[in-house]
Amino acid sequence: MFQTIKCDITDEIMTITLQRPDRMNAFNMEMLDDLLAAFDKADEDDNVRVIIVTGEGRAFCAGADLDNGDHSFTGEVEDDVEFRDSGGVLALRIYDLKKPIIAAINGPAVGIGITMTLPMDIRIASTQAKMGFVFCRRGIAPEACSGWFLPRIVGISQASEWVLTGRVFPAQEALDNRLVSKVVEPEELLPIARAIAKEIAENTSATSVALSRQLLWRMLGADHPARSHEIESKMINWSSNQADAKEGVASFFEKRPAEFTLTVSKDMPSFYPWWE
Amino acid sequence: MFQTIKCDITDEIMTITLQRPDRMNAFNMEMLDDLLAAFDKADEDDNVRVIIVTGEGRAFCAGADLDNGDHSFTGEVEDDVEFRDSGGVLALRIYDLKKPIIAAINGPAVGIGITMTLPMDIRIASTQAKMGFVFCRRGIAPEACSGWFLPRIVGISQASEWVLTGRVFPAQEALDNRLVSKVVEPEELLPIARAIAKEIAENTSATSVALSRQLLWRMLGADHPARSHEIESKMINWSSNQADAKEGVASFFEKRPAEFTLTVSKDMPSFYPWWE
Amino acid sequence: MFQTIKCDITDEIMTITLQRPDRMNAFNMEMLDDLLAAFDKADEDDNVRVIIVTGEGRAFCAGADLDNGDHSFTGEVEDDVEFRDSGGVLALRIYDLKKPIIAAINGPAVGIGITMTLPMDIRIASTQAKMGFVFCRRGIAPEACSGWFLPRIVGISQASEWVLTGRVFPAQEALDNRLVSKVVEPEELLPIARAIAKEIAENTSATSVALSRQLLWRMLGADHPARSHEIESKMINWSSNQADAKEGVASFFEKRPAEFTLTVSKDMPSFYPWWE
Repeated sequence: MFQTIKCDITDEIMTITLQRPDRMNAFNMEMLDDLLAAFDKADEDDNVRVIIVTGEGRAFCAGADLDNGDHSFTGEVEDDVEFRDSGGVLALRIYDLKKPIIAAINGPAVGIGITMTLPMDIRIASTQAKMGFVFCRRGIAPEACSGWFLPRIVGISQASEWVLTGRVFPAQEALDNRLVSKVVEPEELLPIARAIAKEIAENTSATSVALSRQLLWRMLGADHPARSHEIESKMINWSSNQADAKEGVASFFEKRPAEFTLTVSKDMPSFYPWWE
Repeated sequence: MFQTIKCDITDEIMTITLQRPDRMNAFNMEMLDDLLAAFDKADEDDNVRVIIVTGEGRAFCAGADLDNGDHSFTGEVEDDVEFRDSGGVLALRIYDLKKPIIAAINGPAVGIGITMTLPMDIRIASTQAKMGFVFCRRGIAPEACSGWFLPRIVGISQASEWVLTGRVFPAQEALDNRLVSKVVEPEELLPIARAIAKEIAENTSATSVALSRQLLWRMLGADHPARSHEIESKMINWSSNQADAKEGVASFFEKRPAEFTLTVSKDMPSFYPWWE
Repeated sequence: MFQTIKCDITDEIMTITLQRPDRMNAFNMEMLDDLLAAFDKADEDDNVRVIIVTGEGRAFCAGADLDNGDHSFTGEVEDDVEFRDSGGVLALRIYDLKKPIIAAINGPAVGIGITMTLPMDIRIASTQAKMGFVFCRRGIAPEACSGWFLPRIVGISQASEWVLTGRVFPAQEALDNRLVSKVVEPEELLPIARAIAKEIAENTSATSVALSRQLLWRMLGADHPARSHEIESKMINWSSNQADAKEGVASFFEKRPAEFTLTVSKDMPSFYPWWE
């Protein structure tokens, strides 16, 4: 089904492995199409609660495949005259996901290799990883909506230093500046990513998580907390009257794991997606 | 006067103590009304320069009182059909305060117990505190405008991890991720909160603080620094010609404490509130 | 040419030194005019790749010169009735720069002395530095667009604490809270600032850097990552077809330093500035 990625679903976790190890998993248009298809599948399949993205071999993703000698990947084009950055097409699809997504950065992640992880909810890295927003060293400019995401994740000052110098830096520096939340030994990377995914999958309501993920990302661009109040009021009013809230309270009082039953495919409230 | 809180004013500091210790200070509609009344009092009373909020007994606030079996607190309703999240009503009132407000988190702060502190200016915690944005584990969704506040305080990545897992975490983790600025021994919590409050009350102009508090919060949602320039120009032009600026400069040159005289009740400039 | 600053260009780095050491480099209207002229020069001169700002003598800048007894500097006035904060005029000019700018804070930086550095891309400090957002202690209010910049750099909670108390704090506290990215011994300050500047000047495309700097700052106020996608798509489409991208890829494959040729004075794309 996929040419450039491997996609496995186990324990309600979809693990996507970038699979061009001889090219250090360099990004190309086939990989874009494969990833978009995998994310559509993840959003539709109630058996997928969380997504993990990692890389095969020693790299996570070495950036755009430069074999054609330039950076002009032709992304999904809306009309004949409008060029769209393919990294941005990918980033906006990740931003729209209903399922949480974790980047398990196993090795070098450079250019689109790191910017594609910015709309992901959680990033952890191996000690073998290194990162670089190298665009200014290649004569191009940041992409994949990283102009919007990066300063919100690491702060404008560190974002500026990394982008304006274009230098490659080690995983520890990414940790010190909150680009990743953990740096672990290579063999612990996927087990820890799976443990975080399981913590979500085993303890939470799928519809609560889908609503919460979009709430946090959408409110990051909102001009006033009243925007949050408007949509949260709808969410609380709706969710309080659903089976998952009753189970959430009952299981809490009975000190037992909750057994949530709502599904993202069938049970999202009518006000979702509220931003359209 | 109050049923669910205690409210004390000493040394220009209003200390609000959540006062349902047998219920771990769980939040209910009476507590909402009491807090709203206390905040109105604080804003009107020039003898209140700073507000501290803490909890009686071993908890700060264990979340919404679930005794009625669901989360459907009926907040302040604007019309018959519009449900408003009561936590959001509280959060927006705190956001609008003219006086700085400090959360002294003495113990567990879960759900609304922690989200109510997000619009507060400063949060410090006891080593006995633990926090949780547990909404997804109860089958509901984040409230109290936390979709807007939390990513701005701790960053989108940590906000996502806490909300999407819904797990409870210790005070030290809150400190490591800047949800609180200090973690101290239980017996030091209120003395340190009062020292911060006194630092403000004893050294600053009340009108300067009221303007500054709103400036910082309002600009956090603004699209361009020019928005800040517009309102700051009004503030500088107005304040430079007031008695407090003359006293501020004179006391600085004379190396003595300033004796500011402007009051929030009578002396706020005509352009305040500028956002209406 | 300049009365209150010294301006040197060496190795493609413009070093601006605030030059009123007998007044601790206090800010006045002449300094505003001198800085605006220096920034215009930096933007126009292709021999300037990076700007460093530092102070002569023991201070960086002790704030607004209070000799006239108040804070009413008359900034650049658009019409007879509109007062404009001079710090904000300066901050907005820095925000608009095409060249990266580094603050090398050699000593006390108080009031406008610290707020003028907030729109700069990178701030490093000497161990001798101390900072203070002292406005509330002087009876005035924050300026230089610091209401917008400060919470985005250090987070709303630390911004609030510093502004509402108005206290002066040491360089180490600035580092702990990411107001500066490094604190170094006094004699290392300028060498380290120059090393960062050289890292940019020697390795990157000037047009890439000019586009990237504005992308990061402009997107910090944008409401949705799609805004970033729109402009990044233009940037990628344009830059991919320029000589600098070809050289960037070629030098990467040939493992040699790139020799970029595009200039900010002549070669910026027609869509720049895209926000007007």
